[in-house]
Amino acid sequence: MLKKAFEEVMNRKLVLSINCPDQTGLVSSVSEFIYKAPATIVEASHHTDLEERRFFMRHEIELLDQNKSVADVRSEFQSLADKFDMEWKLTDRSEKKKLVLLATSQSHCLVDILHRWKQGELDCDIPCIIANHPEMQEYADWFNVPFHFIDFKQADADPFAEIDQLIEKYQADVVGLARFMRIFPGHLCAKYAGKIINIHHSFLPSFAGAKPYHKAYQKGVKLIGATCHYVTEDLDEGPIIEQDVLRINHSDTIGDMIRKGKECEKAAFARGLRYHLEDRIAVFNNKTIVFS
Amino acid sequence: MLKKAFEEVMNRKLVLSINCPDQTGLVSSVSEFIYKAPATIVEASHHTDLEERRFFMRHEIELLDQNKSVADVRSEFQSLADKFDMEWKLTDRSEKKKLVLLATSQSHCLVDILHRWKQGELDCDIPCIIANHPEMQEYADWFNVPFHFIDFKQADADPFAEIDQLIEKYQADVVGLARFMRIFPGHLCAKYAGKIINIHHSFLPSFAGAKPYHKAYQKGVKLIGATCHYVTEDLDEGPIIEQDVLRINHSDTIGDMIRKGKECEKAAFARGLRYHLEDRIAVFNNKTIVFS
Amino acid sequence: MLKKAFEEVMNRKLVLSINCPDQTGLVSSVSEFIYKAPATIVEASHHTDLEERRFFMRHEIELLDQNKSVADVRSEFQSLADKFDMEWKLTDRSEKKKLVLLATSQSHCLVDILHRWKQGELDCDIPCIIANHPEMQEYADWFNVPFHFIDFKQADADPFAEIDQLIEKYQADVVGLARFMRIFPGHLCAKYAGKIINIHHSFLPSFAGAKPYHKAYQKGVKLIGATCHYVTEDLDEGPIIEQDVLRINHSDTIGDMIRKGKECEKAAFARGLRYHLEDRIAVFNNKTIVFS
Amino acid sequence: MLKKAFEEVMNRKLVLSINCPDQTGLVSSVSEFIYKAPATIVEASHHTDLEERRFFMRHEIELLDQNKSVADVRSEFQSLADKFDMEWKLTDRSEKKKLVLLATSQSHCLVDILHRWKQGELDCDIPCIIANHPEMQEYADWFNVPFHFIDFKQADADPFAEIDQLIEKYQADVVGLARFMRIFPGHLCAKYAGKIINIHHSFLPSFAGAKPYHKAYQKGVKLIGATCHYVTEDLDEGPIIEQDVLRINHSDTIGDMIRKGKECEKAAFARGLRYHLEDRIAVFNNKTIVFS
Repeated sequence: MLKKAFEEVMNRKLVLSINCPDQTGLVSSVSEFIYKAPATIVEASHHTDLEERRFFMRHEIELLDQNKSVADVRSEFQSLADKFDMEWKLTDRSEKKKLVLLATSQSHCLVDILHRWKQGELDCDIPCIIANHPEMQEYADWFNVPFHFIDFKQADADPFAEIDQLIEKYQADVVGLARFMRIFPGHLCAKYAGKIINIHHSFLPSFAGAKPYHKAYQKGVKLIGATCHYVTEDLDEGPIIEQDVLRINHSDTIGDMIRKGKECEKAAFARGLRYHLEDRIAVFNNKTIVFS
Repeated sequence: MLKKAFEEVMNRKLVLSINCPDQTGLVSSVSEFIYKAPATIVEASHHTDLEERRFFMRHEIELLDQNKSVADVRSEFQSLADKFDMEWKLTDRSEKKKLVLLATSQSHCLVDILHRWKQGELDCDIPCIIANHPEMQEYADWFNVPFHFIDFKQADADPFAEIDQLIEKYQADVVGLARFMRIFPGHLCAKYAGKIINIHHSFLPSFAGAKPYHKAYQKGVKLIGATCHYVTEDLDEGPIIEQDVLRINHSDTIGDMIRKGKECEKAAFARGLRYHLEDRIAVFNNKTIVFS
Repeated sequence: MLKKAFEEVMNRKLVLSINCPDQTGLVSSVSEFIYKAPATIVEASHHTDLEERRFFMRHEIELLDQNKSVADVRSEFQSLADKFDMEWKLTDRSEKKKLVLLATSQSHCLVDILHRWKQGELDCDIPCIIANHPEMQEYADWFNVPFHFIDFKQADADPFAEIDQLIEKYQADVVGLARFMRIFPGHLCAKYAGKIINIHHSFLPSFAGAKPYHKAYQKGVKLIGATCHYVTEDLDEGPIIEQDVLRINHSDTIGDMIRKGKECEKAAFARGLRYHLEDRIAVFNNKTIVFS
Repeated sequence: MLKKAFEEVMNRKLVLSINCPDQTGLVSSVSEFIYKAPATIVEASHHTDLEERRFFMRHEIELLDQNKSVADVRSEFQSLADKFDMEWKLTDRSEKKKLVLLATSQSHCLVDILHRWKQGELDCDIPCIIANHPEMQEYADWFNVPFHFIDFKQADADPFAEIDQLIEKYQADVVGLARFMRIFPGHLCAKYAGKIINIHHSFLPSFAGAKPYHKAYQKGVKLIGATCHYVTEDLDEGPIIEQDVLRINHSDTIGDMIRKGKECEKAAFARGLRYHLEDRIAVFNNKTIVFS
């Protein structure tokens, strides 16, 4: 891989993601296309799903012809895409994705993401932060991000309708649930399929739903963890992007587990968001292929 | 802790395990008793269950009076045990526990345990190996351990009755299920409660039951693991002694997961058995306290 | 251990730390003293250094007599301390330690510690932040902590004299070097022995000194890490408190290693500071005993 | 990747390893060659060394033309290899490599490798085992592998000359030092460059040379590890293939560290050998690229 060069080069950087039936000639056809674009391959990753005979490919390329637009390359690629029956997309890394963050009362994941973003670790824009606890405003202000308080206690309001409007208003490409402890309604999960990323504070499929640390404590497990996954209509059942665990023992109280578990939550959430923002994730059969 | 000294000393080495309601004066009374035995504390561990206000204590001690027997110390301790309403036991480390191993067709855990035992890592006797696949005989022979083949295919036989008889015949203190893929009948789980240790090839409570690696593959988890636990009548629900995990990704086939997972199985099973053999485990409310 | 109870109780909470020659009767004498104080043991930890026959003990206790002061308990304990030739201290957990943080241009460890502190994870006061890069001021302001800029570029100034004055002015109990990339002069290392905690961005003793990630990249190691240690006059040779590692591979650039390594740095530094603030660390023969 | 299919297919399986200056058109030319061979790509991996602008490629391919020999493919590929100034090799997976194992008195790595081999985890032949302790004979006999005892104590003998002769006699493709505690003479390191794989019982570059666990104990590190590397004339300085670590604490004696460390040694050695046997390793600038 040429990551460093990738960050250095002056030319337009694109990511070509392909998902199609497995066939011979695929790799040579695609690499020939890139060569003739003309473009250089910065990073290439392949995977084949054996049961479904499905092929997945990700290329980070650098377009060498300054006069060509991304649209030009897209239209040139279409015939190849048709020939191999591809689902595909070509994204321009210079167009930053918009990440909207939602939080409740716990700030550790929110602040962790905001500080990574400020440090340049996460290549995106963060147009707004939404929370149902006003004290999150402070952190939004620190990072100069617009803040919206949603009152879930108000009887007549429809908080998720407000959230939906904000996601649309800010044209979010991805919604990050930074320990947002409310269940998204099914119609929004469907509307934003593949765009909502949650961090769940357990090693799924263990301890889905509420109070996973309490459940882990009752069960007496020797490791706890966190799971970053796409949100679907089935609670905590969406495609898993990343997981992390750490060791505990009988002397750890639920309080200790909650404190220690934050490390897994922050790490798994940040990696998961990063993979999504860099178009490193393909989803197939409710599972993820992550070209990390 | 004085582990090394513990192995060096000439005097009788004992392990005193206590489990009782939490009360003030416990530690000072017990340590005073040990002091006056006379004995020295080699390793001391405490734990309190906060919800049940229950206290757990383990002492490795070295008896300094050569003329005293373990029976003498036991009878002297009884009054203190009664005063504090203790469940307790005093074991003599020089009396090796008898470990009976059961296996099916997979040999990795069996051979791993046998070789650790031969190297002196596991302080026990292994009076026999039982398997329902004759090819395990070879490994038993290598280590000069009697082997018993149990034919589960024979229509009229009662294989678990044979196993029960063998466990009794060899006076097993603990039964290790080294990837023994048969479900123990309830009455044997009850009869040998706290004496049967299983290694399950998943990170419980995820993927209990059959074919956990296949389930993990279907689910698309990013970490797989193994769980060493006591066997109870509820399948894969017994008290967890030890767990281990390792990272996988989308490119790992089920075959890769089975191969890689063996590392977790061997490690967790060996540690779990070791803790049991050294009287390091207390079981309470279907959870373990492990004074590792 | 009774950590939770420890946080709940109303009574005065004390930590008794003992370091003395190993002798029989120690544990029983100390636990009897605690019992008669009167106090209850909340958490007890022991360790014996086998080569030096030295005994280490830490007790978290709850003083039951409201009319007794810590000074009273100290004076009562002195005779026992003398009898067993103890080095010891009795600290009152309600008296928060003062942690002064030093930083350079990298903010990840600084902000991580500040946010843990704000969340109540670290039981201390942070009276000031010192840095030789003015942009750190912003973070100090966020958390309402006084900030002092030290100009290392000024020809005639003596920056470490200023730092020394600030440490004294704010009566720091511990100084945390949050990726402070300047070498402390020997006389300050000696003056604040056991009080300065550094996070080094390598798995020591590998890659001591400058640019450890570059050295690790050149060496081609497959794991990178971080080390939290006390600062002594020998650069990166002080007693190790905590270490953490993570896996890398050939595709990781130095930039990737720097980014990923931050996770280890934050985790090891936060745990190391926490152990120190809770009086969980004993130092002996340039090594640490950590009663975590 | 198509690993499973790879094991299933009937056709000839080949591994094409390429190492050459980075140039545009490389990937498309090579993949076109494979396509026209005709062959299908089973697994493809790329890496570019940024500083040296050097490109590394590994393809597992399945040759579809039954009438073609590996020699045919090699000769066809030569012109492409010349054009791009490639160092390359094309190996036939059906030709098993010959692994000669050397041991001293410790058997854990030896038995671990032998049992993995017997289980089919390691795709190779093991023509002989060499040791300077006769008790290793027992394990060789168990696995029906010829055993050669080399007496290092004999005054007039030249043990490494005998070892050299045995390596030649058995036409070893790779020599595995399974905790073989003797230093290979420089001329043999040179003669068998890139063919001798050692497991060192520390996390290199920490604690190179003798008694690493004792050094780690003295240093007071909080993690210990093992390193699998190619042997060069510089002791413990050869290219690192794989490393593994585990957590310890102040209560671990040197004996505990030696016991626990065996887990890392076995795991890192087995993975390292596996990568070599499957032609997954490229060596460049004393570092390894491992296409695991």
